[in-house]
Amino acid sequence: MLSAQTDYPPLFAEALARTQVQVDGAMERGFLVPTPVDMAGGYTHEVHKQNWKTLSGAGAIYRLTGDTTYAAIVRDGLLAYAEVYRDWPTHPTARSYATGKVFWQCLNDANWLVYVSEAYADVYDWLEPSVRSRINAELFRPMADFLSLENPQFFNRIHNHSTWGNAAVGMIGLVMDDEELVQRALYGIPATELPEDLRDDDSGKIMSETGRAGFLAQLDLSFSPDGYFTEGPYYLRYALSPFLLFGRMLADKRPELNNLAYRDSILGKAIDALLLQADPLGDFYPLNDSQKGMSLYAPEVVKTVDYGYYLYGQDPTLLSLAIEQGSVTLDAAGLAVATAVAAGKAQPFRPGSVAFTDGPDGQEGGVGILRAYGDGEERTGLVMKYSAQGMGHGHFDKLSYSLYDGTGEVIQDYGAARWVNIDQKGGGRYLPENQTWAKQTVAHNTLVVDRTSHYQGDIRIAENFHPDLYAWDGDGDSLQLVSAVATDAYPGRRLHRSQWLLTDSLFDHPLLIDLFRVTGDTAGVYELPTWYQGQLLAADFDYTTIDTLTAMGADHGYQHLLTEARGYPEAGTATVQWFGRGRFYTQTMITQPGDELLFVRPGANDPNFNLRRDPGFLLRREGPASTTFLAVLEAHGSYDPRVEVAERPFGSISGLHLIQDDSDYTALRFTHRDGAQWTLLLSNHDASPESIHELILDDTTYRWEGVHHLIKTNDASE
Amino acid sequence: MLSAQTDYPPLFAEALARTQVQVDGAMERGFLVPTPVDMAGGYTHEVHKQNWKTLSGAGAIYRLTGDTTYAAIVRDGLLAYAEVYRDWPTHPTARSYATGKVFWQCLNDANWLVYVSEAYADVYDWLEPSVRSRINAELFRPMADFLSLENPQFFNRIHNHSTWGNAAVGMIGLVMDDEELVQRALYGIPATELPEDLRDDDSGKIMSETGRAGFLAQLDLSFSPDGYFTEGPYYLRYALSPFLLFGRMLADKRPELNNLAYRDSILGKAIDALLLQADPLGDFYPLNDSQKGMSLYAPEVVKTVDYGYYLYGQDPTLLSLAIEQGSVTLDAAGLAVATAVAAGKAQPFRPGSVAFTDGPDGQEGGVGILRAYGDGEERTGLVMKYSAQGMGHGHFDKLSYSLYDGTGEVIQDYGAARWVNIDQKGGGRYLPENQTWAKQTVAHNTLVVDRTSHYQGDIRIAENFHPDLYAWDGDGDSLQLVSAVATDAYPGRRLHRSQWLLTDSLFDHPLLIDLFRVTGDTAGVYELPTWYQGQLLAADFDYTTIDTLTAMGADHGYQHLLTEARGYPEAGTATVQWFGRGRFYTQTMITQPGDELLFVRPGANDPNFNLRRDPGFLLRREGPASTTFLAVLEAHGSYDPRVEVAERPFGSISGLHLIQDDSDYTALRFTHRDGAQWTLLLSNHDASPESIHELILDDTTYRWEGVHHLIKTNDASE
Repeated sequence: MLSAQTDYPPLFAEALARTQVQVDGAMERGFLVPTPVDMAGGYTHEVHKQNWKTLSGAGAIYRLTGDTTYAAIVRDGLLAYAEVYRDWPTHPTARSYATGKVFWQCLNDANWLVYVSEAYADVYDWLEPSVRSRINAELFRPMADFLSLENPQFFNRIHNHSTWGNAAVGMIGLVMDDEELVQRALYGIPATELPEDLRDDDSGKIMSETGRAGFLAQLDLSFSPDGYFTEGPYYLRYALSPFLLFGRMLADKRPELNNLAYRDSILGKAIDALLLQADPLGDFYPLNDSQKGMSLYAPEVVKTVDYGYYLYGQDPTLLSLAIEQGSVTLDAAGLAVATAVAAGKAQPFRPGSVAFTDGPDGQEGGVGILRAYGDGEERTGLVMKYSAQGMGHGHFDKLSYSLYDGTGEVIQDYGAARWVNIDQKGGGRYLPENQTWAKQTVAHNTLVVDRTSHYQGDIRIAENFHPDLYAWDGDGDSLQLVSAVATDAYPGRRLHRSQWLLTDSLFDHPLLIDLFRVTGDTAGVYELPTWYQGQLLAADFDYTTIDTLTAMGADHGYQHLLTEARGYPEAGTATVQWFGRGRFYTQTMITQPGDELLFVRPGANDPNFNLRRDPGFLLRREGPASTTFLAVLEAHGSYDPRVEVAERPFGSISGLHLIQDDSDYTALRFTHRDGAQWTLLLSNHDASPESIHELILDDTTYRWEGVHHLIKTNDASE
Repeated sequence: MLSAQTDYPPLFAEALARTQVQVDGAMERGFLVPTPVDMAGGYTHEVHKQNWKTLSGAGAIYRLTGDTTYAAIVRDGLLAYAEVYRDWPTHPTARSYATGKVFWQCLNDANWLVYVSEAYADVYDWLEPSVRSRINAELFRPMADFLSLENPQFFNRIHNHSTWGNAAVGMIGLVMDDEELVQRALYGIPATELPEDLRDDDSGKIMSETGRAGFLAQLDLSFSPDGYFTEGPYYLRYALSPFLLFGRMLADKRPELNNLAYRDSILGKAIDALLLQADPLGDFYPLNDSQKGMSLYAPEVVKTVDYGYYLYGQDPTLLSLAIEQGSVTLDAAGLAVATAVAAGKAQPFRPGSVAFTDGPDGQEGGVGILRAYGDGEERTGLVMKYSAQGMGHGHFDKLSYSLYDGTGEVIQDYGAARWVNIDQKGGGRYLPENQTWAKQTVAHNTLVVDRTSHYQGDIRIAENFHPDLYAWDGDGDSLQLVSAVATDAYPGRRLHRSQWLLTDSLFDHPLLIDLFRVTGDTAGVYELPTWYQGQLLAADFDYTTIDTLTAMGADHGYQHLLTEARGYPEAGTATVQWFGRGRFYTQTMITQPGDELLFVRPGANDPNFNLRRDPGFLLRREGPASTTFLAVLEAHGSYDPRVEVAERPFGSISGLHLIQDDSDYTALRFTHRDGAQWTLLLSNHDASPESIHELILDDTTYRWEGVHHLIKTNDASE
């Protein structure tokens, strides 16, 4: 614990000063402890939420400045709660599977207790022993028991709600030196002490399945061995907080447990996993039910960065994230970060490619992120999702991808259909369209067969399966590959997608090469969406816009789609060109006779205007049991309306074609208008990095080692 | 003229250094003078365009550093042109009403000559007299004659093209001390020396109409007495350049003409008019055929700011624009600006309300801009357009408005349907949808009667009329008013719109109060659009979305509109709520029995996806010969997806109603949820600021002086 100092480095001193302004402002308005009656957003909810911030801020100020005015604020606030807490009934709303006392759900009570425990720790030694005893006995021990023994369905699951419960009980136990609470937090309530028929509210695993509970079980079961969280980064961000706060306090007060190193430093890996799942603007990838706009630079991610730096290796690149966040935690971690920043130790945050595994054992697919750096260190990031379903928040989008560059989203994942905490939109909860649109396959950049979502859009089927990584080459070289296979999304069909990022000085930005092979036994109708961000500029095939717009279908998301235009490319290639944020994009796709391009937009059956009207196009192919889609996406040039000069508005690739494509090998080729030509070879049957392959194409014999191989020539006549 | 210095202030030194990098780079690539063959964007076009930049940059560097390397660049470049110029035929494209020699149109040749004249001035004294003579005789005098005597249809109009021609001929005349050219530039080619049947390419006035030509005539006839340019700020920005460049050189070399003070300092007024027609982000209002995104901070506006500062009064608020521009002109004006910036003289640019008149005599309506400043000096700007048609670039949008705040556009003007210089979109020219959509009334925030555009959408009718300002109160106080009347947009109907910005501490941001009275003799169908920027959150009336979307009409813009939903408000008020860029907006409108709200979006009959899919809604009323629309728009609260807290997501106004509304007076009233009530009174028959009015409402007698009057009470029962 820090002792009072006066000369803190700027980032820390500013964070302290802001906290003081907030606490002083709150105290000026008065510290009230109203009897709880309201739901989230209501008066008593907001007051008690403000109180935890005031108490935790005041505790920190006292600890850092020695000003006992602030210690007294904590003391008096806690005494005010102690005065009334035991007499409060459970919250009158009774709307939760685990109704709280201070708030409508135990989860919020646990949030309160986590942060107030920190405040209590700050003033504990300063308090009169009699005051301590009173607060312990009349407020905290009852609250801890309420959140655990009285609500085992909240406390004893493997679920992020329970992690908050574990952390709350454990942290107050550590402060009060109440070993019984600490043990309960670490290991859960013993099964023998539980009622027979525990109920929960969603698909979180309950104790009866695993036989384990408590903080250590959460550490074992919440993350994959890489620290990946199956619901995606938006939820990892939320789930990580109690791990970090309890984990740090445990490290301080129970160093012998060595929890920071537990499970091969799983907390450090989870920190890294969060920080590595953001686009170049800092926004987390909107996988599954994520809200767009949540960011590395959100206030609650400050502790992730600071604890990652302080507890796990002082990585100087994290300091540049801290600078962008503009704040630090008011503890030793934040001080370490601020001190290092002040010493000029920050280095650019330059994340590399990474393949996360999913599932507690890392055996349930994963998410592959390829990153390539172009001119001016601009980053392009490709995210391919071949993870498990992600529980109740999962989307039916196996092998989907999204693409980001320095301008933000290029090929978007729709994210959730929800406006968190905006009352006008369904009270801020998930909207009906989340189920009917956002979760459906067609809302994502992956293949839809017969206008039916993967696993028929049924979570009960989906949670039994997952795709698998086929090949990975994420070494940061000029050619990187992620390749995965899904065999269960459509029974009897094998989906195999391979995506490359190719960096070459002939292109302004890394090229995306996308190969999607589907093999099956029966004919099908295939639609492969591209949800681009921008305005359509042109296509190189005839298309006709449609005069009467109606919903494309009745279900699986198609009930929300309007077809604005229908295009008839000739067999060969088709390009679609659009303008994003100051940049041009050209996607070139191989086409077969009869292929159609459907230009689509959500907007049908949307009675409350809950869906964004973002554009997309579907490459549609009817008929074959097996077929292959191949596309190359170029990002090029620029346009600034202040200057009105269009730099390189046209793509430079031509002659894209599949030279060979069978169960053994795929060979593809394309040409740059300046003459350079690339031939890219992939083994479809052996992904070993050591295997030697040989392929004869047009009388040329290619031999290579490993799953893929690129040949660049400068003579297009080859 | 500046002499060589080494110790320039930073902004100037940086601009000089950037120029040197550009010139050195261009010379490294080689100075070529290819025979002209290409259109804009083609090779020879781009080379000659680069050459004028290289020459003008080199001239400035020599002037500022004394380094004769750069003088030699200018000399050798000009000699290379002199070697070939007279042998070049007119440009082979022959696509312009005035085909150039260096470029496809005389306009670009004149651009070239303007900038190269500056370079020539820089080195003139350094050149050997024999070289000067050769360049004068073989390049510049022939070029000046070509652009004037050989192309009078280009040179002798009152039009911005001719201004370029005048400036080019005049500037090279000044440099060569060729008085014949200077006189020709100032006064045009005498009518007696012109062919009989001069032709031009658009609606610009030709000499035969006014009997005058040349630079001074342009100064008299191009602007209103306020410096307003009838085509709007996007075109003013372009038209202003030759005025400023020739004007500055004239002031230097012919001070006796005193052109800077000509017509009551019209050039200074035009500079102010441009700088005052931008939103809080710096973007020019997209009036008429304007491109969105053109900005105060565009490179070509640097000289406007610098000359405005240097030549017209050293206004220190312009310095903060220069800082944001990050550059200055490489001349005495730029040095003055950079020096003042370095001395810390910059003050915030804080434009106030202003009413511009339109027409050469200021008698053809105008544009009223109300500006109010709220918390943190955030600016809200309201633009009401009651100007003349604006020639070929005008839109049929009498009494339309647009609204801007610190987030940018709130209620948008669509601007032009054009992607300047983006080849995929009609070669960068105006698109067909500019005529069929962007110019039509329904694309704007003003009243459409019987689904027919103002003046039947016919420029031949429109150019005969203009609305008139009825009342103006733009003193910057808490209540400001702009009010205008259009009597000719629909024969037999008088349109009278009054808009107020009301600043009150009860509201987060200034309130817009919008009163639109239409009086006539025959029944009509009225549709009043609101083109909001953002996502629809909610409406407080029932609406039903539409399953089958088709074009709303066949012409006047309606052929491009889809009705997405139809709402049926009860008589009284209706609100529409949307979310903009991090901020909430609520519009409350009074409604009558039978009124409908149509939620619409462009998208129909758009075969090349040329139109943006921006949302809007129309308040539709059928029947009466005379009727009144009243709306109040609140901007409130905030939402940040990184924090997920919705601050004040709901508006606070209720009880909006018209208490009285007749040809004498309109009285309206509304209430804040906290109890405050406003009663706003307007005289519809006497706008004099001195008149005394008396009105009895509900037994209360109101007496006031001037056209409008606001009463605020804190007792809602009043």
